[in-house]
Amino acid sequence: MNISLAEQKLLISVACQAADAARVVTLSYFRQPNLAAENKASIGYDPVTLADKQAETSIRAVIQELRPHDSILGEEQGDVVGTSGLTWVLDPIDGTRGFVAGTPTWGVLISVRDETGPIFGLIDQPYIGERFLGGFGLSEYRRTDKTLPLTTSRCSGLKDAILLSTFPEIGTDAERSAFSTLSQKTQLTRYGMDCYGYALLAVGSVDLVVEAGLFPYDIQAPIAVVQAAGGVVTDWRGNPAHDGGRVIAAATPVLHQAALEILSKAPPNL
Amino acid sequence: MNISLAEQKLLISVACQAADAARVVTLSYFRQPNLAAENKASIGYDPVTLADKQAETSIRAVIQELRPHDSILGEEQGDVVGTSGLTWVLDPIDGTRGFVAGTPTWGVLISVRDETGPIFGLIDQPYIGERFLGGFGLSEYRRTDKTLPLTTSRCSGLKDAILLSTFPEIGTDAERSAFSTLSQKTQLTRYGMDCYGYALLAVGSVDLVVEAGLFPYDIQAPIAVVQAAGGVVTDWRGNPAHDGGRVIAAATPVLHQAALEILSKAPPNL
Repeated sequence: MNISLAEQKLLISVACQAADAARVVTLSYFRQPNLAAENKASIGYDPVTLADKQAETSIRAVIQELRPHDSILGEEQGDVVGTSGLTWVLDPIDGTRGFVAGTPTWGVLISVRDETGPIFGLIDQPYIGERFLGGFGLSEYRRTDKTLPLTTSRCSGLKDAILLSTFPEIGTDAERSAFSTLSQKTQLTRYGMDCYGYALLAVGSVDLVVEAGLFPYDIQAPIAVVQAAGGVVTDWRGNPAHDGGRVIAAATPVLHQAALEILSKAPPNL
Repeated sequence: MNISLAEQKLLISVACQAADAARVVTLSYFRQPNLAAENKASIGYDPVTLADKQAETSIRAVIQELRPHDSILGEEQGDVVGTSGLTWVLDPIDGTRGFVAGTPTWGVLISVRDETGPIFGLIDQPYIGERFLGGFGLSEYRRTDKTLPLTTSRCSGLKDAILLSTFPEIGTDAERSAFSTLSQKTQLTRYGMDCYGYALLAVGSVDLVVEAGLFPYDIQAPIAVVQAAGGVVTDWRGNPAHDGGRVIAAATPVLHQAALEILSKAPPNL
C-alpha cells in the first residue's frame, strides 16, 4: 500500500501518543501492592487482565480519535473494522507473567499493517522508559532525551550467537526438541525476556530470538522493529511470521539460514 | 560485632559511593558496540572480564581510601586482609551472561560482613538506575529522586508463589530434580533474572528465589537485602547460606519452610 510521507509521519506520531497513554496505565499497576494482593487471590491473574484491558482502552482511544478509518486488532477487546486498508495490531502488555513478577522486560506492542504485513511497529518498555521503533525508514531507540539508531549485530555463525527465548518449556514436544538442538549449537541461551528479546536483537546485543505458539499481536510489532534494524524474521519454514505460531528472528540472513536449517526439521503440530 | 550508629552510617555511605563509581564503569561497557564486537571474537568473554575487573578496581579504590583497615573479598582480584574485623564482599557484575546479552537484570553487589555473616548489602542495577539496600536498620529502594521501603510479600503457600531462578539448567542432576519438584508446586516459575531476582523478592513482586552452585560473593549482598526486607535466606538444609552453594530465599518463614521440605531431600553433591 502506498502511503505518503506525511501520512507515515502521522502514523508514527499516533503510535507514540498511544504508547504514551499506555505508559500511564501500566505504570499505575506495575509492582503496586494492590496488584500483588489481588493477584494472589484464587481467581488468578485478573488484576493484570485489568491492567491489560485498561491499557488497551487507552491505546484504542488515541487511535480512534486520530485514525477513525483504520481497523484495530487487539489482544483484549473486539476487532474494529475500518475502511482505510490499514490495521493497528496491539498487545497492551506482552509478557504478562513478567509483568506480574515485577521484571522489567514486558512491553507494550503497537504496530500498523497493510495487506502485506506489518509496515511500522514499536516496542515500549515503560518502567525503564525505553522505546524501540521500526518502519517507514525509521529504526530508532529512544530513552528520555537520548536517541540512537537501531542496528542488528553482524553475527553470522551459530557458535558465536546469543539466543533468547521466553520459556525453556517452549511449545510442543517437537518444537522443544528442535529448539534444544539449535540451542546446543549457540554460544549462549538465555530465557525470560518476553518481547524485550526482540528489542535486544534490534539493539545488536543478542543475535537470535526463537519462539513458538505466538499470536499475531505478539509478533507484528517485533517484526517491524527487527526488520527495520536489519534483521530477518520468518516462521520455522522460512515463510512470513506475522500470523504468529513459530518464529525465528535473526540478526543476519546467514544466521537466519543456519537456524532455519535446524528448526525446519520440526514436524508440524497436529 | 558491635558497630556504632556513626560507623554504620559511614559504611552505608562508602557502599553507595563505591556503587556510584562502579556505575560509571559498567555503563561505559554495557550494550556498547566495542563490547559486542570483541565478545564475538574467538577468545570469548574477555571484554566483559575487563568490565568486571575495572568495576571492581573502582569499587576497591573507594573502599581502600575510606576504610583502609577493612578486608576485601572480590570476585576478580586478590583478597585484601585488614584488621578491623569487617570484610567487604564484592561482585562487580553479577550476571555476566545477562550483561553480555544486554538484559537489564545484572547487578553490582557490594556487602559488608563480620564474623557472623553479612550485616549490610546493596544490589545496584545501573542501567535502570535502581538500588536496593538492606542492613543497619535500613531496607530501602532508591531510584533517582524516589525512595521506597522494601518489604517482602506475605505469600505463605507454594501454590500462590512466584519462583525465580537464574537458569532452568540449575546445578547438578539432583539439584535440578529437586528444583523441578518445587517448581511444579508453585503458581509461576520464571528464569533469567540473576541477582535481580533477589531485588524483586525484596520489593515483594516475587516470593521465592532458588539457586545452586553460588559463590560467597554472589549471595552475601542479596542475603542482607532480603533479610532486611523481612525475608528468610538459608541453604537447602536450613543452614546459613553466606558461603554460597545452594540457596533458598523466601518472602516468609512459612513459605521458606515449605520450600525447604522439598529441597532438603536433594542428596549432597559428591
